Amino acid sequence: MNETTARAGLTRIIEPNDLTGAALVAILGAVEAYKLIREHTGPTPARTQQQVADLLDAHGAARSSLRLDAGLDRWRARASVANPQADLQLMSNLGGGILLPGDENWPRGFDALGLAAPHALWYRGKGAIDTLREPNTLVAIVGSRDATEYGRTITAELASGLVRRGICIVSGGAYGIDAKAHEAALAEEPPAGEATTRPSTIAVMAGGLDRFYPAGNEDLLYQVHREGLLISEVAPGSTPTRWRFLQRNRLIAALCSLTIVSEARWRSGALSTAHHAAEMGREVGAVPGSIYSANSAGCHRLIREGAATLITDAAEALELLGKTHAPHPAKDSPPIGEVNAAKAEDAREYDGLDVQDLLLLDALPIRSPRTVDELAILAGLGIGSILGGLSRLAAKGLTESKPDGWIRRYPTGKPKQRMRQDSDPLPRE
Amino acid sequence: MNETTARAGLTRIIEPNDLTGAALVAILGAVEAYKLIREHTGPTPARTQQQVADLLDAHGAARSSLRLDAGLDRWRARASVANPQADLQLMSNLGGGILLPGDENWPRGFDALGLAAPHALWYRGKGAIDTLREPNTLVAIVGSRDATEYGRTITAELASGLVRRGICIVSGGAYGIDAKAHEAALAEEPPAGEATTRPSTIAVMAGGLDRFYPAGNEDLLYQVHREGLLISEVAPGSTPTRWRFLQRNRLIAALCSLTIVSEARWRSGALSTAHHAAEMGREVGAVPGSIYSANSAGCHRLIREGAATLITDAAEALELLGKTHAPHPAKDSPPIGEVNAAKAEDAREYDGLDVQDLLLLDALPIRSPRTVDELAILAGLGIGSILGGLSRLAAKGLTESKPDGWIRRYPTGKPKQRMRQDSDPLPRE
Repeated sequence: MNETTARAGLTRIIEPNDLTGAALVAILGAVEAYKLIREHTGPTPARTQQQVADLLDAHGAARSSLRLDAGLDRWRARASVANPQADLQLMSNLGGGILLPGDENWPRGFDALGLAAPHALWYRGKGAIDTLREPNTLVAIVGSRDATEYGRTITAELASGLVRRGICIVSGGAYGIDAKAHEAALAEEPPAGEATTRPSTIAVMAGGLDRFYPAGNEDLLYQVHREGLLISEVAPGSTPTRWRFLQRNRLIAALCSLTIVSEARWRSGALSTAHHAAEMGREVGAVPGSIYSANSAGCHRLIREGAATLITDAAEALELLGKTHAPHPAKDSPPIGEVNAAKAEDAREYDGLDVQDLLLLDALPIRSPRTVDELAILAGLGIGSILGGLSRLAAKGLTESKPDGWIRRYPTGKPKQRMRQDSDPLPRE
Repeated sequence: MNETTARAGLTRIIEPNDLTGAALVAILGAVEAYKLIREHTGPTPARTQQQVADLLDAHGAARSSLRLDAGLDRWRARASVANPQADLQLMSNLGGGILLPGDENWPRGFDALGLAAPHALWYRGKGAIDTLREPNTLVAIVGSRDATEYGRTITAELASGLVRRGICIVSGGAYGIDAKAHEAALAEEPPAGEATTRPSTIAVMAGGLDRFYPAGNEDLLYQVHREGLLISEVAPGSTPTRWRFLQRNRLIAALCSLTIVSEARWRSGALSTAHHAAEMGREVGAVPGSIYSANSAGCHRLIREGAATLITDAAEALELLGKTHAPHPAKDSPPIGEVNAAKAEDAREYDGLDVQDLLLLDALPIRSPRTVDELAILAGLGIGSILGGLSRLAAKGLTESKPDGWIRRYPTGKPKQRMRQDSDPLPRE
């Protein structure tokens, strides 16, 4: 019995985030803990029971259900049927393996989990395993299963944009947003110069890696297997239960420096991932949507409660990651969408004009020229300010001298509708 | 020349937020300041010039363009044509009047403006003027002129919901969001027991109140006049220039304890109102929308930058106002929309189950019953926990005993699609 076999066995017997089990392993080591669970049949050793209780107490988790004797009672039935050697062989046959805490490629992000860290991590796939190590290169994109077309589009754009900047996308392999995140990441070419085995996506599964679940995502997950990585903290053959889904969320959050919720209902597993991330001090982003879409209510809730920062594109996600200088430069700049074009359009020629020049601009007529004296009354400025202002505006192409006075000019050739409305020179005053 | 006439004249001569003018009035009083502007023709009095400079310096606003002599130069041309008595008579004929600082009904909210407060406030309309006094009963709803149907719908719902709770809606009388806010507020009946002259809406105008501007909103503004209030800090006959539009925004922000931006582009006057409000320590709310809508980009910007809190309905707006107990109870509860129904639906029967019971729930099959021993292995729980858990779940109608074991039950009669996906009992393990 070595450490690998023992930990492989523990992932089969002890549920994820069972703190009693984690405490027992912390005290005895994995090999002795596994032996105790499998072989001990008499009364629970009093000294170990006390040590486990003390350790849990130190973690503020001293509830009666967490007593060692209750734990041994929970684990015993499963221990009798566990066969870690067979599990290890199976995963090896499937092109996978197991990582142990302390391994070079053990995710640094798991350090934040403390006692709740997994006993080991099963993996499967052709992607380079060292991708798991560095949380700053991993971004989780999660969301509801019943995604809308809006949510899917956002997800695809975020995933593509981040992969182009050298980020690996982590998600849960579920229907809806998760599937779209993996799919879009796989569709994107890795940045130039990137080692080809560095995966663009990682699926964190709630069940064992011997099966691609859910069935509807089998093709997608097989593609993740071919080009990326699947990981799980439970042994092959373990079913993806509700509890394991919930606990899987903490692994996603721990693995990545940034978790993005791209579309989520008011009550969604994605929110649990977001809260795990926030509790660990990781960055959380959420994408807004229509207030009439129940599918965005979860995102709005996160933003409103301060658990997430509002983001609208990959650039804002990177900003949140503190990666304005991406580790790998984008192959090409992302296309400027309608919103970005509008942002640029709104940053207009009025920027940089001082108050008096803005007043003067307002007083300039579109058609019938006004004299300097008329402008002084209309703008409420002195003659000197008017003369100085006219020369500054003329230099910017915003006014033009006519034989009998001055008129407004628009650098773009014609007045914009939006501008006319504000500065409509009323025939009064 | 009395205080009223002098201040009426000042609103004709001095631009809004002209700090030199404000300083002069603070030092000499309105009557003497007005006289100096109108009658003084020689060199600027050195002592007063110094006092103005010192006062502006104390406000951190000592720029050369703010010197008193420059101010007198600006104001003199207009002063020669000002006729405050005629303006007062005109406004009286139009069913309006003027409020002075210190008047009982002078908006308390203007205190936050300091030196930038208006010299006087013109009003017009049949609504009770004391509505202006209390910022906590006033909520501004502002946004872009080129509103979408989405923005208009949000605006109408917010305005209606807030008026039903005794709030008066303040906006700028412009096209788009402003118009919709006034319109929806007018359409709503005031809460029962409310004095009928308490207006449901107030329009803060950038130009003089002798004319309803913009022309396309004439009917709407006439209705505001009949049932609500129009106010302005500039004298009748003053045109609504760009500068006055910008300065009008600070009045809206100052008047209300809460400013809501319901839909706004990246660069929008509504954002200036929001920033004014935030700088004065007032609450600011913004409504999210599609990230692909340029018309929501301004709202997202405010939320992202922390200048506004994300809100999705009137209840969240009231929460922000600190008015969860509205001054006047709603006549009837607002209808529960799709999103609220989804929120309620998502709060489900699993709430309150402890970890072990959730594990057990996951292990229960839908069709073929499982024995207690099988459940112990599947759930990873001891026999005692299984027996206790089955009795608790049975009491909640979540499990049922069969001759050869236990199965899962759904209180609503049939399994939900969402649940099946998670707890699908795989035929393995």
